[in-house]
Amino acid sequence: MAKVFDASEVAKHNTPESCWVIVEQDGKKNVWDVTSFLPSHPGGSKIILRMAGTDCTEEFDPIHPSGTLEDNLALEALLGTVDIATLPRLKKDEEKPVIEGPPPMEQLLNLDEIEQAATKQISKRAWAYYYSAGDDLISKRFNGSVYQQILLRPRVFVDCTKCDLTTTLLGHKVGLPIFVSPAAMARLAHPDGEHGIARGISEFAGMQIVSNNASMTPEQIVEGSAPGQIFGWQIYVQNERKKSEAMLARINKMSDKYKFICLTLDAPVPGKRELDEKSNFESAAPIASALKTTDEPVRPGGGGVGQQLFWGTASDLTWKTALPWLAKHTSLPIVLKGIQTHEDAYLAMQFTPQVKAILLSNHGGRALDTAPPAVHTLLEIRKYCPEVLNRIEVWVDGGIRRGTDVVKALCLGATAVGVGRAALFGLGAGGAEGVRRTFEILEAETATCMKLLGAAKVSDLGPKFINSRAVERDIYDGHAGLEKLGLWVQAKL
Amino acid sequence: MAKVFDASEVAKHNTPESCWVIVEQDGKKNVWDVTSFLPSHPGGSKIILRMAGTDCTEEFDPIHPSGTLEDNLALEALLGTVDIATLPRLKKDEEKPVIEGPPPMEQLLNLDEIEQAATKQISKRAWAYYYSAGDDLISKRFNGSVYQQILLRPRVFVDCTKCDLTTTLLGHKVGLPIFVSPAAMARLAHPDGEHGIARGISEFAGMQIVSNNASMTPEQIVEGSAPGQIFGWQIYVQNERKKSEAMLARINKMSDKYKFICLTLDAPVPGKRELDEKSNFESAAPIASALKTTDEPVRPGGGGVGQQLFWGTASDLTWKTALPWLAKHTSLPIVLKGIQTHEDAYLAMQFTPQVKAILLSNHGGRALDTAPPAVHTLLEIRKYCPEVLNRIEVWVDGGIRRGTDVVKALCLGATAVGVGRAALFGLGAGGAEGVRRTFEILEAETATCMKLLGAAKVSDLGPKFINSRAVERDIYDGHAGLEKLGLWVQAKL
Amino acid sequence: MAKVFDASEVAKHNTPESCWVIVEQDGKKNVWDVTSFLPSHPGGSKIILRMAGTDCTEEFDPIHPSGTLEDNLALEALLGTVDIATLPRLKKDEEKPVIEGPPPMEQLLNLDEIEQAATKQISKRAWAYYYSAGDDLISKRFNGSVYQQILLRPRVFVDCTKCDLTTTLLGHKVGLPIFVSPAAMARLAHPDGEHGIARGISEFAGMQIVSNNASMTPEQIVEGSAPGQIFGWQIYVQNERKKSEAMLARINKMSDKYKFICLTLDAPVPGKRELDEKSNFESAAPIASALKTTDEPVRPGGGGVGQQLFWGTASDLTWKTALPWLAKHTSLPIVLKGIQTHEDAYLAMQFTPQVKAILLSNHGGRALDTAPPAVHTLLEIRKYCPEVLNRIEVWVDGGIRRGTDVVKALCLGATAVGVGRAALFGLGAGGAEGVRRTFEILEAETATCMKLLGAAKVSDLGPKFINSRAVERDIYDGHAGLEKLGLWVQAKL
Amino acid sequence: MAKVFDASEVAKHNTPESCWVIVEQDGKKNVWDVTSFLPSHPGGSKIILRMAGTDCTEEFDPIHPSGTLEDNLALEALLGTVDIATLPRLKKDEEKPVIEGPPPMEQLLNLDEIEQAATKQISKRAWAYYYSAGDDLISKRFNGSVYQQILLRPRVFVDCTKCDLTTTLLGHKVGLPIFVSPAAMARLAHPDGEHGIARGISEFAGMQIVSNNASMTPEQIVEGSAPGQIFGWQIYVQNERKKSEAMLARINKMSDKYKFICLTLDAPVPGKRELDEKSNFESAAPIASALKTTDEPVRPGGGGVGQQLFWGTASDLTWKTALPWLAKHTSLPIVLKGIQTHEDAYLAMQFTPQVKAILLSNHGGRALDTAPPAVHTLLEIRKYCPEVLNRIEVWVDGGIRRGTDVVKALCLGATAVGVGRAALFGLGAGGAEGVRRTFEILEAETATCMKLLGAAKVSDLGPKFINSRAVERDIYDGHAGLEKLGLWVQAKL
Repeated sequence: MAKVFDASEVAKHNTPESCWVIVEQDGKKNVWDVTSFLPSHPGGSKIILRMAGTDCTEEFDPIHPSGTLEDNLALEALLGTVDIATLPRLKKDEEKPVIEGPPPMEQLLNLDEIEQAATKQISKRAWAYYYSAGDDLISKRFNGSVYQQILLRPRVFVDCTKCDLTTTLLGHKVGLPIFVSPAAMARLAHPDGEHGIARGISEFAGMQIVSNNASMTPEQIVEGSAPGQIFGWQIYVQNERKKSEAMLARINKMSDKYKFICLTLDAPVPGKRELDEKSNFESAAPIASALKTTDEPVRPGGGGVGQQLFWGTASDLTWKTALPWLAKHTSLPIVLKGIQTHEDAYLAMQFTPQVKAILLSNHGGRALDTAPPAVHTLLEIRKYCPEVLNRIEVWVDGGIRRGTDVVKALCLGATAVGVGRAALFGLGAGGAEGVRRTFEILEAETATCMKLLGAAKVSDLGPKFINSRAVERDIYDGHAGLEKLGLWVQAKL
Repeated sequence: MAKVFDASEVAKHNTPESCWVIVEQDGKKNVWDVTSFLPSHPGGSKIILRMAGTDCTEEFDPIHPSGTLEDNLALEALLGTVDIATLPRLKKDEEKPVIEGPPPMEQLLNLDEIEQAATKQISKRAWAYYYSAGDDLISKRFNGSVYQQILLRPRVFVDCTKCDLTTTLLGHKVGLPIFVSPAAMARLAHPDGEHGIARGISEFAGMQIVSNNASMTPEQIVEGSAPGQIFGWQIYVQNERKKSEAMLARINKMSDKYKFICLTLDAPVPGKRELDEKSNFESAAPIASALKTTDEPVRPGGGGVGQQLFWGTASDLTWKTALPWLAKHTSLPIVLKGIQTHEDAYLAMQFTPQVKAILLSNHGGRALDTAPPAVHTLLEIRKYCPEVLNRIEVWVDGGIRRGTDVVKALCLGATAVGVGRAALFGLGAGGAEGVRRTFEILEAETATCMKLLGAAKVSDLGPKFINSRAVERDIYDGHAGLEKLGLWVQAKL
Repeated sequence: MAKVFDASEVAKHNTPESCWVIVEQDGKKNVWDVTSFLPSHPGGSKIILRMAGTDCTEEFDPIHPSGTLEDNLALEALLGTVDIATLPRLKKDEEKPVIEGPPPMEQLLNLDEIEQAATKQISKRAWAYYYSAGDDLISKRFNGSVYQQILLRPRVFVDCTKCDLTTTLLGHKVGLPIFVSPAAMARLAHPDGEHGIARGISEFAGMQIVSNNASMTPEQIVEGSAPGQIFGWQIYVQNERKKSEAMLARINKMSDKYKFICLTLDAPVPGKRELDEKSNFESAAPIASALKTTDEPVRPGGGGVGQQLFWGTASDLTWKTALPWLAKHTSLPIVLKGIQTHEDAYLAMQFTPQVKAILLSNHGGRALDTAPPAVHTLLEIRKYCPEVLNRIEVWVDGGIRRGTDVVKALCLGATAVGVGRAALFGLGAGGAEGVRRTFEILEAETATCMKLLGAAKVSDLGPKFINSRAVERDIYDGHAGLEKLGLWVQAKL
Repeated sequence: MAKVFDASEVAKHNTPESCWVIVEQDGKKNVWDVTSFLPSHPGGSKIILRMAGTDCTEEFDPIHPSGTLEDNLALEALLGTVDIATLPRLKKDEEKPVIEGPPPMEQLLNLDEIEQAATKQISKRAWAYYYSAGDDLISKRFNGSVYQQILLRPRVFVDCTKCDLTTTLLGHKVGLPIFVSPAAMARLAHPDGEHGIARGISEFAGMQIVSNNASMTPEQIVEGSAPGQIFGWQIYVQNERKKSEAMLARINKMSDKYKFICLTLDAPVPGKRELDEKSNFESAAPIASALKTTDEPVRPGGGGVGQQLFWGTASDLTWKTALPWLAKHTSLPIVLKGIQTHEDAYLAMQFTPQVKAILLSNHGGRALDTAPPAVHTLLEIRKYCPEVLNRIEVWVDGGIRRGTDVVKALCLGATAVGVGRAALFGLGAGGAEGVRRTFEILEAETATCMKLLGAAKVSDLGPKFINSRAVERDIYDGHAGLEKLGLWVQAKL
């Protein structure tokens, strides 16, 4: 029924006026006319024009969930299929260096080694996207080093034969106080994708917050997950609110799996990730001059996978408007991600019971460089408005590399800690099995740390087990009273 | 009409007793007798004698504004022209390595990359002059690193769809709170020179403070500038006050462009810039022995482009004498550059309305090494005499590399920030277009930072957006009361 | 009488079902059937199966005291001897590179040079076991660097012609305030083993705490020691208490030599020493797949010499149970090793007179990474419960590299300081003579430091001789009152 | 008259029983029988035996003032001369690599470059002796880096056309507030020796403290010095007090030149300078075994030039005995060198008027490692007993590399600053002329710094010109009241 094209004919449609591409879907090489979509492509039209008339499966597939083409184009845009015999042999494919497979996962002893193994397995572009962070990577590095500034205080003569890592998040039991933070584009790392992450953490009864920019559909990701295994869905509200509303409706239907909505606030606009931008830039260079005609200005900070994902994201959310809007479209609890000051933590607390948790995060250092690490925000909260810790759950992410880091965050009052890049690098190193190894390491290190501290269960942990004085003296001290903030919220509601 | 010399005849006049040089001016190779000028040359006679009898256009031109010879020599000193055919082929020229042109400006993603690109384009001597700073470059490096010690505090749920970078300086609207600080000898970097800087920042409605030691005339620099584009003129008061007075008269005439006089106080004598000195030194070496006869002592710190520029600068200025003298010769507002303590900021405030702004600056680390960065002085002012920030504008320069640096300075109370080397390196990397790219990057980074902070316009910025505690604990704490200083000023006036 | 086997026959017994090994004992190559012991081997069965059917003397001997086989196996397990002529020539032996002998000890000027010399002499596996520490080695490095943060305060015009380093530990006179901390497996470093350490320190009248995991028997170690030379015995309480009780009985019998029991509390479970684990891992790799059948899970942190030694160690000790149990089995004074907080120091003090000293230690950084160095704990005690220093002796170990380090610890109130790795590296560098050199250096450096400070004897030392302010500001400040702790102990007893 | 020996005969006397050496003196190759002196040689007998029977001029000369042999041996020990023709051609001499001469002094721009130039010119042994410091060189490095922690505070609008560096030390006018601290063995660096230093600083009217271990006699050093040029004599009191008394008598006679006695207290025993020791060690190695017979124990820290110089130094000086003894033997004012705590500064003040100045010094980091830099002691004095600064002069040395360092010390209250290694490296780089260049650089840098600060003369300098807060927070804070110390002194006298 579908028309079969000769590849040479497809190749002619490589201009802004007529732009066709070939994408492999379900084993077929489909030909799509994407001309009408060019102006509204999140990553700009250039990215598409660069591959106009050719088979772009390799570029397209890992960063678009299935259904993307169908959702954004009319039925008629699917023109037919291409005759495979007429396709040129992919030069790219031939050039690909023979990469040794990953090492046995059990030989990887810590998260640094997993990152190193992944770096060898994944494409340079994927690495650049995952590794990159804002500007000079100061916040990214600080996220990790701040944990090393905190000392532990081991107590002796405590029976720690048994050590129980289970805890409760939003009322749901999880196997360990470590979850997967939303991290986009998992299939860039490995075909197992976000579903592989779900599989990898299932034996630990781990929790996963699925990225708004996942490379698989929310349905695919949770498919076949273990009973009791829980998920959250991250949302970046879109300028076209209807798109977001449709997605919320879709998630609402899977409320046996998706237990909350994670509204991300730390990146109303994308940070400047030069590594990512540069990596994209390099592949774009050869045709840069040809594209001059498209008349899109090249602004600094305008390239990179990260930038494309942000296209269409709303930056006009406010306390007054966003939460009521959400309440209209879902009854799932809300987790606010990206709180970076005690003031905003205090404000968030005013929105219980709709808001049940906040996730202290500087977006892995990928948004605003020199933004504070979550540990700073935790210490600010402890100092200026400790009641927050009693009223809502406080989760943190950023910089977790060791079980001792996990324990330190919990001692400071965090309910749980998230890992983002670590899950992606685990996936890159060995697919679902690499994710499993990542969590196995974190679980063992966390248990060892707790036993050596003399803490038999998560609820035993508290500030008496740490000495955070070296960090405390750097905490913001311009606190000016929070009463007004509270009143302000009352007035809004 | 003018006499035409054979090059071999000119070559004979290569002694302190009779010293001729060839300089290309308006396409002609003029022969000047500079014998009488030798003792009063700012850079010492050696510099000239080294090229006596030859064509020194390449050395002379980039660091002298046009008119320099005419202003300093009698008419008769212009002896005629040289017969070009008789000139030896310049060996230098032949030896010059083929340098690749600059990379496309749009591929340069940040100010470091622009500096790297410029370093490859400009001469070693120009680089040494621009890059160098006092002694061990401690202040230069601290100027930059102090910004990295300050953390940002991003707020969430703020509508930052629009972000307005415009602001007002001395009552004049500018497109962004970033200006060009006075930086000498722009033609060392690129033939576009200071005029190229003016062109490069025009689309941003940027402000430029023209260096007293510009390599173009003040008239040339502002020629053809955009309507509303404003300039300031930097003055180093000369021992021969009449020269300074003449220059002020010249600037007064262009008060549609030049809106203020920037009196520089941070370098009454030149700092010790060893890189610059060494670079000059190397080229001088071959004829060093021959020059022994000139009997000029070689004092440590006595070489370098920087040193030459300082020749004749007055170091006897005082509060009591300098400002009244200025008032006699110009009615333009005065900006005092080089304030490095809160005491002097406080004193400057007493001189309103003549003094309308102060520019906190340690001369880019080029004057006194281990002098404090402007951030320190800002914090001192905030701590000991915050009223200064309300009474006069406080500008800062030194160490700005990122939009986040700009924002941090503004949060601390600065009205605007200046970039000096960054503009020169932009020029070196790509002429006027390189300057444009430099400002484009700074503008984009500044806007991104403000949006991620949740600040929609410049006036929103304030100390609540930053955590400067790590810097505050290093601020001078020997404050002893400022009342006496104020009384002292009253008594003077 | 004993049966003589052909090596090829022994070689057949290389499975979990029948596992024989050859071990040289007293000059004879004995054949042992260790099949029954496989499940209970501290290091797991794999370690043994890897050498099943072969001569494992080289691997077995340096880390097992004599008597280990006899104590753990039935008499019948000793099957006979092997006919040496039938043994294959050891390939390993042939491959061994010719290592130059150690340098003359007198050319080694400090403890770093001794460690370097030892590193060249000992096997990579021994080095990895000694050098390794927990996770990222942060505590290990901090143990050393914290001493460099403390400044000395030399006084002038003090007669220090004579300088007396002798002091008293638990009532026993020792030649210097430096002892050997328990450090396992000395024969990995040198055949002289723990007995060599005893010999090396005898001329200094040094004290030695013998490791629970010594590679020689407690009887062998003290054999022939100098009159008055004293020892302590370290105990890790075993899950099989009877084993520990038997060992205590054995030590009680040598109370002329062993003057106290050192109960180790800082490692109820082993830390994660990746270097050690990795070194073991590498040798295991070739047979890893073959062993999959044994069905032992490979957990992260599950390899390494260190892990094997911990097998069977009790992690259920409490203040309430452990000390009374010890009292039943020995009347020797107890030293509690591994106190890392002032709270536990305060608690320990309540257990006098049974507990006569505490040893502040983070296990050389080998247990919990980012645990505090002993200097921190000392400063905590000084700040919150200085009475501890008067009531019991406070010993410290970890990070001692210089005589100035020794003096600083004593100034802070320590009675004596221990060295662990330093003794082992001394042994590795030159056997007993290397240990002697290590102590000779420490003694000379300590005396020089005291003379330059103006302190003629150990009891002169005190806080006035040091400036520890840079460390003090990092000390834990969450102190919450110790009275309750004291009451709690009263209630327990 | 003197007997002439054949070199082969001298060569036979190479044992402890009969030990002859050849030393060139006044152009003659004298043969000395030093057998009787062996046991009392400061550096031990080995050093001599190593060269027994040979010409040791090259080793002996640079570190012994003329007259050393005559002063220590009987007349008969001078046996005669050697027949030069019979001497073997010195292999050493032939092997000496051709070293390029020093660069033109005027090309050396700062003290680091002078040190680098000297390092190339001088022997490895001399370098090791000069460069070395105690243990890990922590104090040596801290001496320098502490100045970089202090920020300057430049004031504007100050007339600094003229800048006067002259000041007064103990009532004597000097040309600049920088003097030469006692530094031993100048002829190791250059034949000009200590006399060359005197010449090098004469045009600056500089002051020199001559080392007790100078390589020239006190008479030689001051010979021909400029009128008004002043010197001090450093004394290490000898166990044989008579030797010290004789030397004092000798100095008293030159009181037109030597204006004070500098009693050194910071090194009652030598520090452990491993670089120096190792350098000596290497040359000793070849004959080490042969010397075993001499039965001298090789103690750690027992080698090196530094150690030899200390031989015979008294370490039993006390406040009570040393100053009265000195008063008996000289009426020159006393300067106490090596004060490192405010307590001792306070005590010293009690001994006015005999004691007129103290020199805060940690012996260039060469005595006790981790001893505080002079800046710390200055800040302690300012904090706890500022009256000291009014009652006696406080000089400092250690770590001065820049004019800014000089100015910072003066701002903190020092009367003048000393340079030790810098003078020796100046000498090594270019003899007297290198010393002159060193002082020329320091003078120019100091003047530039003062002008940029806005200080026209030395007495203008004070704490308002510096921000030393980063250092102040590390100052000793265990101050316990000084009254008792004062009373104690009263009781003694």
